[in-house]
Formats: sequence, structure tokens, C-alpha cells
Amino acid sequence: MNIIKIGGSLTYYIKPLLESLKSYKREEIIIIPGGGKFADTLREIDKNLSLSPSISHKLAIKCMDILGEVFSDIGGIKAYDNLFDLKREIKKERIAILLPSKLLLSTDISEHSWNVTSDSLTLYISKFLNVKNIIIATDVDGIYDKYPEGKLLNIIKADMIKGLTAVDEYFPTLLKSLNKIAYVVNGKYPERIIDILEGRNTICTKIIP
Amino acid sequence: MNIIKIGGSLTYYIKPLLESLKSYKREEIIIIPGGGKFADTLREIDKNLSLSPSISHKLAIKCMDILGEVFSDIGGIKAYDNLFDLKREIKKERIAILLPSKLLLSTDISEHSWNVTSDSLTLYISKFLNVKNIIIATDVDGIYDKYPEGKLLNIIKADMIKGLTAVDEYFPTLLKSLNKIAYVVNGKYPERIIDILEGRNTICTKIIP
Repeated sequence: MNIIKIGGSLTYYIKPLLESLKSYKREEIIIIPGGGKFADTLREIDKNLSLSPSISHKLAIKCMDILGEVFSDIGGIKAYDNLFDLKREIKKERIAILLPSKLLLSTDISEHSWNVTSDSLTLYISKFLNVKNIIIATDVDGIYDKYPEGKLLNIIKADMIKGLTAVDEYFPTLLKSLNKIAYVVNGKYPERIIDILEGRNTICTKIIP
Repeated sequence: MNIIKIGGSLTYYIKPLLESLKSYKREEIIIIPGGGKFADTLREIDKNLSLSPSISHKLAIKCMDILGEVFSDIGGIKAYDNLFDLKREIKKERIAILLPSKLLLSTDISEHSWNVTSDSLTLYISKFLNVKNIIIATDVDGIYDKYPEGKLLNIIKADMIKGLTAVDEYFPTLLKSLNKIAYVVNGKYPERIIDILEGRNTICTKIIP
């Protein structure tokens, strides 16, 4: 089982990405949607009107559900709101989208803060699965030593990640505490994700605990 | 029972509006949220990537739920996802927010199209209630004979409404078929909504069937 978080920044590049992943079929793939512009709208409202942190957290997760349904419709990939059904059904299609609000709100497993976004939430979700690869697909090639105009890092230890990167603030700490590996990769090049699934070297950043 | 649809365009003016409505208490008020910028984001995705009309419809309604929870948090007004609980509880506080997705998706009462937005959906919801006034609160003073730079119409027959107005395309037809009256009013001036609730003349447009 592989878990691929697809960031909202890939919304307008989603069709070829989903088509490639759907036709891959050699490994089971669970897609976790980001919150995209829906979550950006919420963040802007929060910045201006100060929502309570718990409500921001809850609604940002609901934004992930909405983007998940968008991905489902565009990619022709079934979406599930629970792992029970998803794990049964993924055996057939080899790919499924998780609408994460039910799992995340019913377990209430994470801190209620904007430091925990869909990247970290993907790690929390991975706890409930027997995951081979955790892949964060975004619109940049990986993590850079500085950004912009830095050098792409092929590999980095979680606790060396600092400042503004392609993953959220809490992600490195959580990855380390889970003792997991994750890949940050540019989803505009679906072949790179396939490379990772196949165990080949590719353009991406591997984060080790 | 009065039903007030609060458009997303009022998001950044929402605090004084909700405060006034909350402290009014002489009449029961149900607030129906619009979809705001959340629905705008969806519409943009639909325009670029062509979602299926039913999914757009469903997700636009989910956007109303999200904005409803935002209003609930900012205004300190309880939100309900069903009329059973709302009607029991509104007796105490005199005001409540409806998160409409459960009602609208379970009944599937409306056409799946962008011609039917939260304005028309408010009319559909009004069918399940014994409603005194239907009020559409938006960020303009009402309906104009032309816009911009037209004259504000104090009263208009539903079938005289044409072109771009403060209400969605299907609203006039539906209002007429329901044989109801509705008011379009500027929510930046909460006192105008209170005027309508009190039966006083005010700056707004009254739409008659």
C-alpha cells in the first residue's frame, strides 16, 4: 500500500497525474487530497476574522474532502470516507481516494493548528495503514537548500529541515517520531512518482527520520 | 420563523450583522449561508476542468456548510445540520444557522446546475418551514433597473427580473412558482434587515410573485 498526498497546487495539473496513477496498477495507491484554494480561503478568513483554532482545523479538513471529490470526479477514481470500505474496494481498482474528514475528526488525532496541514495529516493517516511509500506530490521538485534559487536536495534528515519548504511545519517532527521515510516530488511529472513506486532513482527529495 | 440567506460577499462584514440578528430575539431567525469564496473556487475549477454538474452541485452545497460553520464560530450562533434539532433548539436562542447539505442532498430537491445557487436553495429550504419573511442579504442595496448606475427598485414582480442581479438565475421563477415574497437587502446595514422583520419600510427590494 502506498499513500500519495496530492497538494492543491496540483489542481490544474491533476488530470494527467491521476491518469498515470490510475493506470499503474502494480501497487495499491491511496490518494489523500490537500485543501487547495478552499483551505487558502479559510486561512484568509481566519487571518481577518480570527476563527477558533479548532474550527479552522475542522473546516480545513472538510476542504480536503471537497478537493478529494473534485479529484475523484476528474480522475474517475472512487472516493471513500472510511478505511474499512476503502481497503475492501482498493483490491479491485488498485487506487482509491480517501476523503479524510471522518477518520480525522472521529479520531481527533492531531493538534488543532495551521502548523498541521494535509502533509502532517497524511502521516497521521498512514498510522492506520501498512504503508510502503509515503509520497508528498507538490508543484516543486522537492526540498531545496534554499528557496528560490537553491539546490535540490536528493536526501535530507527530517531534523535538518528548516524554514519554508514544500511540507508543513510539523511534518519533519512527526515523520521522525513515526520513524518513517517520505518523498517530496513534483506531481507535474507523474513519471517521477512511478519511479519512486518502482524503487528507481528520480528527481525528488527523500526525507529520512 | 424568518429565513435569512447571508451571501458569502458579506463574509468580511459578518460580525456586526450576526450580532444585530442575535440580539434581536423578537422573531425566530434561521440563517442560511451562501457558498462565498469557497464556491467561487469550485466554480473556477469547474470552468477549467469541467466537473460533472451533479458533483459541482453537491460540492457547492458543502461549501455552504463550511461558510455556515464560519458564521457560527464568528457569531457565537449554533449551527444545525437538520431541521428536527434546529426547530427544537431555536425556541431558546431565537436564532440558528442551518448547515444545509444534509437536507439538500437527502431530499435532492433541486436541479443540479449553477443556475441554482444558495439563493434558490434557500427557497427550496423554505418549503420545509412555516416562513414569515424570506430575506436575501447581500452586499448591494437590492435590485436595480440597470446595474451599475441604475435606480434601486423598491418593488418588482418576479417575472420582471432579468439579467445580472443580486439573486441567481432560477430564483425569480422558483419564487413565482412558490407564490412567495422575498426581500433583497444590503447586509452591511443590519438595521435594514431589522426594519423588514418589523414590517417597516426600508432600503431594499421587495420581490412579489
